[in-house]
Amino acid sequence: MAVGLGSFPVIPSIPGVRFAAMEAGVKKANKKDVVVFELAEGSAVAGVFTQNQFCAAPVRVCREHLAKAKPRYLVINTGNANAGTGKSGMQNALHTCETLANLTGVALEQVLPFSTGVIGEPLPVAKITKVLPDALASLTSEGWQNVGLGIMTTDTLPKGAYRQIELSGETITIGGISKGAGMIRPNMATMLGYVFTDAAVDQMALQSLLKQTTDQSFNRITIDSDTSTNDSCVAVATGQAANAVITDFSEGDGAKFAAAFLEVMQELAHAIVRDGEGATKFVTVEVKGAKVQSDATKTAFEIAHSPLVKTALFASDPNWGRILAVVGRAGVENLNVDTVSLTINGCEIAREGGRSPEYNEEAGQAAMNPEEIHIVVDLGAGDASDTVWTTDFSHEYVTINAEYRT
Amino acid sequence: MAVGLGSFPVIPSIPGVRFAAMEAGVKKANKKDVVVFELAEGSAVAGVFTQNQFCAAPVRVCREHLAKAKPRYLVINTGNANAGTGKSGMQNALHTCETLANLTGVALEQVLPFSTGVIGEPLPVAKITKVLPDALASLTSEGWQNVGLGIMTTDTLPKGAYRQIELSGETITIGGISKGAGMIRPNMATMLGYVFTDAAVDQMALQSLLKQTTDQSFNRITIDSDTSTNDSCVAVATGQAANAVITDFSEGDGAKFAAAFLEVMQELAHAIVRDGEGATKFVTVEVKGAKVQSDATKTAFEIAHSPLVKTALFASDPNWGRILAVVGRAGVENLNVDTVSLTINGCEIAREGGRSPEYNEEAGQAAMNPEEIHIVVDLGAGDASDTVWTTDFSHEYVTINAEYRT
Repeated sequence: MAVGLGSFPVIPSIPGVRFAAMEAGVKKANKKDVVVFELAEGSAVAGVFTQNQFCAAPVRVCREHLAKAKPRYLVINTGNANAGTGKSGMQNALHTCETLANLTGVALEQVLPFSTGVIGEPLPVAKITKVLPDALASLTSEGWQNVGLGIMTTDTLPKGAYRQIELSGETITIGGISKGAGMIRPNMATMLGYVFTDAAVDQMALQSLLKQTTDQSFNRITIDSDTSTNDSCVAVATGQAANAVITDFSEGDGAKFAAAFLEVMQELAHAIVRDGEGATKFVTVEVKGAKVQSDATKTAFEIAHSPLVKTALFASDPNWGRILAVVGRAGVENLNVDTVSLTINGCEIAREGGRSPEYNEEAGQAAMNPEEIHIVVDLGAGDASDTVWTTDFSHEYVTINAEYRT
Repeated sequence: MAVGLGSFPVIPSIPGVRFAAMEAGVKKANKKDVVVFELAEGSAVAGVFTQNQFCAAPVRVCREHLAKAKPRYLVINTGNANAGTGKSGMQNALHTCETLANLTGVALEQVLPFSTGVIGEPLPVAKITKVLPDALASLTSEGWQNVGLGIMTTDTLPKGAYRQIELSGETITIGGISKGAGMIRPNMATMLGYVFTDAAVDQMALQSLLKQTTDQSFNRITIDSDTSTNDSCVAVATGQAANAVITDFSEGDGAKFAAAFLEVMQELAHAIVRDGEGATKFVTVEVKGAKVQSDATKTAFEIAHSPLVKTALFASDPNWGRILAVVGRAGVENLNVDTVSLTINGCEIAREGGRSPEYNEEAGQAAMNPEEIHIVVDLGAGDASDTVWTTDFSHEYVTINAEYRT
């Protein structure tokens, strides 16, 4: 049911990055479910992780390892989140890293582990470590679709994006993959996102760029308001390209790089929404005219989370009163309802807090029919704005989540 | 699909209260959709209203009128919320009051208007005023079920509750009705709730009791996290009984009255949850062991709002990892996940942040099967606690809300 999600792009090889996707049978047979990335020595690596305090064991390990060393390997399994697993969960995450470190001769801290899948069940760690030698033997820099497939859970399609730009006359590539379709309301990161570039980027600068663009991409999508225990997004700059090391993004090559990086991040984030569980619509919620940005952000998220708005979107029903009701409860201080207007796909529905005089149901229905919906709420109180992306709420969402474990 | 909601109780006559329910054809033919209450002169009347800033015109009028005069009439219509209707909405609400005031010889400010139904469509005010003379001619003090039916929208059953207690040797009655099944996450009040008593209660004391018990009843229920534009709850004490006027609730008759009043409020609030749109479960979410009550309150509401928890409840799936994931994102400061435990219907599932050693899926499944589910989360951090009541999230919810207007 993915909305407007094309086939997986042919991402070029990115010098300094090799990968492999294996079938380990973590939860199901005949599915690629373990992915290994190898990063060239000296790569700058930045990460952002879930703010859910019940974070998974691999997230804890990632945070610790990133603080101590420059990563050389990422190891990712699907089918099991290794979250809510207590002490044995930590041991299992560390054991995976240790096995890979021993096989490759790097330090334990140079391996970052990631898990995604069911929460609360013991990680079948032996199944994962068993395939690591074969993974290392089959490392390649081509066939990104395989690693896109290898990190999927309830996703229906693999998700990838890339951009190529010229820096000082040399073509560099920014490419990545993401996954996620449910339990999606990232807070500082997405379910799983990985962005790689061969450009040379300063480590601190990369971390700051990742944080900033996450706030304009993964941190602005929501499917069901549930922040995952395993959200992780990692950016890798291998520095194999000959560009001058990028240290800031305010102008020149830095600005060019940051713009392309943001585009890749947004395309990966939007891909998660387009493949949202049961999604039949891709919905952009833009709130403008706010006094402060936080008013715009919270109003946009409240609209995107409202079950009543989402079921109306599923029905293509211009039931705009439900949107105004959310605006009224979103916690905007001193909201003046008489300055609020609402437009859907260019059709002005409400103005000055009530129905627009020119509005009729026929026009509203026409505006709600497309798969891509753009809701614009203008609070009429200032110049601040924000945008979030979400899906509708369908029978299929209930079916998927009432049957996920069975 | 109402869960454990019995037949409408035979509420006794309450001296000082008369009512009528009429068929006005506001939205549909052959449905009681306008209700009028007449209150004895001198009745104490207290009200709490939605905190949604996009509140409906009748809510604005109610607030103004209550501040100016002692109400003698309540007039309620279903089928149209008169919300998001701008200036003409205010005019229509006032016109309804004015018509009733002229017919009865009371002041305009002594009439309180209430509306519930679709948001954003003009109120067909002429249909409502047309039935008011017949309503006045047929006022009665018996047959509460008719007014319970007369305020329903997507409710499948009318909702009422009452208690009788002895005060100074005299039997007094506390009885009321409520409605609501969707757009339910009351904030200071419910969709519509009305509680009447013939006891003599001081006006200020009644207002304080209503506010306090609302926080233990209507303000602790949620069906879909959407706070309505029209929530209103009104308490009326006609003072027709011979008890000494109640002025505080700390001891004696006051305490006895307050306890019975709370029971009626909770039964009416629970009835809304039991009849929640698409509900197949009645779910009590209790969070204890919190450092401060606000931690317990927000955690309980976040669990009650999570689409993933609600769909797991629909499937009777003990997918407890989803509950822990919500606890982790609920915003409890300095949450120690290693002290968190989780019990469902008496079955301990998680302890010290991970699965209980004795837990098995069979026991979890057995705990999730009943219609009535009691989730207890112990944060292990203090003595504060709170409880909210909610429903599961079913296909029927999607169907109802994707088809409500058509």
